[in-house]
Amino acid sequence: LKDADTYQQWYATEHPVPQLLEDAVYGLTEIFRDEISNTTLVANPGCYPTSVLLALYPMLKTYPLLDTVIVDAKSGVSGAGRKPKLITHFVEVADNLSPYNIGRIHRHLPEMEQVLGWWTHTPPSLIFSPHLIPTARGLLSTIYIKANPDWDEDALFELYRETYASEPFVQVLGPGENATYAHVNRTNRCAIGLHLVGDTLILTSAIDNLLKGASGQAIQNMNLMFGFKETEGLI
Amino acid sequence: LKDADTYQQWYATEHPVPQLLEDAVYGLTEIFRDEISNTTLVANPGCYPTSVLLALYPMLKTYPLLDTVIVDAKSGVSGAGRKPKLITHFVEVADNLSPYNIGRIHRHLPEMEQVLGWWTHTPPSLIFSPHLIPTARGLLSTIYIKANPDWDEDALFELYRETYASEPFVQVLGPGENATYAHVNRTNRCAIGLHLVGDTLILTSAIDNLLKGASGQAIQNMNLMFGFKETEGLI
Amino acid sequence: LKDADTYQQWYATEHPVPQLLEDAVYGLTEIFRDEISNTTLVANPGCYPTSVLLALYPMLKTYPLLDTVIVDAKSGVSGAGRKPKLITHFVEVADNLSPYNIGRIHRHLPEMEQVLGWWTHTPPSLIFSPHLIPTARGLLSTIYIKANPDWDEDALFELYRETYASEPFVQVLGPGENATYAHVNRTNRCAIGLHLVGDTLILTSAIDNLLKGASGQAIQNMNLMFGFKETEGLI
Amino acid sequence: LKDADTYQQWYATEHPVPQLLEDAVYGLTEIFRDEISNTTLVANPGCYPTSVLLALYPMLKTYPLLDTVIVDAKSGVSGAGRKPKLITHFVEVADNLSPYNIGRIHRHLPEMEQVLGWWTHTPPSLIFSPHLIPTARGLLSTIYIKANPDWDEDALFELYRETYASEPFVQVLGPGENATYAHVNRTNRCAIGLHLVGDTLILTSAIDNLLKGASGQAIQNMNLMFGFKETEGLI
Repeated sequence: LKDADTYQQWYATEHPVPQLLEDAVYGLTEIFRDEISNTTLVANPGCYPTSVLLALYPMLKTYPLLDTVIVDAKSGVSGAGRKPKLITHFVEVADNLSPYNIGRIHRHLPEMEQVLGWWTHTPPSLIFSPHLIPTARGLLSTIYIKANPDWDEDALFELYRETYASEPFVQVLGPGENATYAHVNRTNRCAIGLHLVGDTLILTSAIDNLLKGASGQAIQNMNLMFGFKETEGLI
Repeated sequence: LKDADTYQQWYATEHPVPQLLEDAVYGLTEIFRDEISNTTLVANPGCYPTSVLLALYPMLKTYPLLDTVIVDAKSGVSGAGRKPKLITHFVEVADNLSPYNIGRIHRHLPEMEQVLGWWTHTPPSLIFSPHLIPTARGLLSTIYIKANPDWDEDALFELYRETYASEPFVQVLGPGENATYAHVNRTNRCAIGLHLVGDTLILTSAIDNLLKGASGQAIQNMNLMFGFKETEGLI
Repeated sequence: LKDADTYQQWYATEHPVPQLLEDAVYGLTEIFRDEISNTTLVANPGCYPTSVLLALYPMLKTYPLLDTVIVDAKSGVSGAGRKPKLITHFVEVADNLSPYNIGRIHRHLPEMEQVLGWWTHTPPSLIFSPHLIPTARGLLSTIYIKANPDWDEDALFELYRETYASEPFVQVLGPGENATYAHVNRTNRCAIGLHLVGDTLILTSAIDNLLKGASGQAIQNMNLMFGFKETEGLI
Repeated sequence: LKDADTYQQWYATEHPVPQLLEDAVYGLTEIFRDEISNTTLVANPGCYPTSVLLALYPMLKTYPLLDTVIVDAKSGVSGAGRKPKLITHFVEVADNLSPYNIGRIHRHLPEMEQVLGWWTHTPPSLIFSPHLIPTARGLLSTIYIKANPDWDEDALFELYRETYASEPFVQVLGPGENATYAHVNRTNRCAIGLHLVGDTLILTSAIDNLLKGASGQAIQNMNLMFGFKETEGLI
């Protein structure tokens, strides 16, 4: 978050070093590669924003947002942290599925809207519904976007494939395919599926929340910052 | 499905007894209790339609549908049937999460639109995205509906509570609560959560796909048809 | 535990009311039904002892113990309690299997040896190896006992069937069958399988650790103590 | 299996090329490294035998077998193969735990006894009880061996550490530690724990059934046969 007040509002504590906020680069590697290569301070993205922003970026470069974007996200339990809490107790999670922080409550919401705002002319509006899934890892965002009648699925696929053609860690799936945890778990990859259905564009975007959604992307950024091969130590 | 042609289109086989279609009553007990009590032929609803239709009914009695309804649904593996298939093999499902039949492909879609059509003046339009979850049972639908600026969350809660006030198997949750598998598994209940967030009404609706979503509701209907106590044998 | 010193040694705290130890009846219902019916104080058995003692009782009534008994036990996570700890965090348990307190360390060991001592002339010796299983509930003990060459599998089956013939909550399985969690979960039952293999008698004994292994058996005992039907409220 | 008749008895089919049986080397890499390096035909060990034989080998080099060895083994579902069967359906496995082929029925039994026979003077006797665990992968054998009063735990640890001191894929755990799936999953390693408890030596031995228990060990052997670095492509 670039703004210290927004930070304080969502994290319930004063930002410890607000003077660094302006210099920090948002570490979504595929989109901000140049800035990351030339900075000494990177803010590593949250897990949910990584999956959502990589999925929305190609579309937002080209098409306007026509309406509220709906993000129905599903995350494995490691996303809730290692500290033992009742909600991460095995018996609470196994055989269960729980929505939480539904609507506009999760702190990843302002992070996503901030970045989307850099890419759109109209202020973006997001509905964000995370769900806790009985798996150790994995994160899938199913994203619903209002489509114009003149949008074309083939053209959208072409746009996504071109945008990510040379990316080692982004896989654009084929027509009729959906991103799943199995596409990405234990890798630094993001898999993106695309369906244009009537007036709705549906994107499925999967990452491993512990790798591309956390430490994997941090290593990818470190590799850039130190002049290493970007894929070093990652698969 | 009331129409034999629609049936043939979605089930890829001719309806075996089309002459009975007109007499069959749709067995969503809470809504069609009187018809079920007075018929000898009930068509038991699918698991997804049960969770979606019970969640949408109170709202649709009172408010018009303003836009496409988005249903992001999550189902345990028993919903895929007992016959061994690769997609239900433990190793394929465990640690995984898979969207399937995204958009307008699943055969529960026409069933839902048919019933919604009985309750609305404008033809309803649904986007339906089922996901396979690594649990044995449980079904949650997260439903996104375009809201009018004059809708009020308190009034909506009141409407839902009144509609289902005397229902033994429908539980309307309180403000800020979300339906989860844990609310309903191994019962014949449907739990419904409600959030009005900006221009979006979000409903969460959970059932056990094997009970309220299948045999439990069938027993509930049988109880009505034979004059037994409606809750006999059910919890 | 009948002995206050043994209690202090295994529970690392002085027994709070040692004067009640003599009056307390060990609440393994099937074996101590008469004493339980006539007491006002029952010590409810641990989950592991319940599965092990019900499996060993018929054999020990008739045959001597020839050697150390080996109990390889497997328990779902609810056996570790509701308080959040790292070892019960979903991410630690899922996809994992962990032996713990192997050998002669677990506090259920003296409880089992005390009761076995009431049934045998020679002091019993037990090796007890509990394992944590990635399920919410369920407990299976696989028990290995040195057999005499003159023991006969048919006679053993007959002995087990007779012993438990009128028990509502003990199911003796048939030849070649093994007890599993699926036989007993969400019931107050204990399922027992039996195999005589060369010089080894193998027993498999399954209970739901939360019911027959805890509150279910407590209710069964309460029913007896208060003169209710023994099966009241239980399945 | 070196003997064509034994093969036919356990696999219910004639061995297709009995003339090759004599030349085939048993591919338990750590023990038969020299033979594997100089052969063109390796018989890759089964998953259960790999975990059991690596755990028993150091002990059997030095001490005699005094009694029947009891192997209580626990395997993830991938050990049952990819072909969809009812017993590997997600709903049958999840929340369940099932012993199967208890006693002397599983075809890995003669494989283990054959190799143990090469290492002992007295014919070995094994009781083998596999259990199906609700995980995708992982295999743990808990092994119970009758111990002589003069055996010493420190000396046994020393023996195990020395035997495997230079092995890249065998990890001897410390006193009080038990092997778990988490020690080995997604690696080619075998982790071995050791407890001497009264007259019983307890070994815990864990492997990933798909790697050290199958394709990983095959690659390790191929590396040797082709003169590659033994650890090439493995972790």
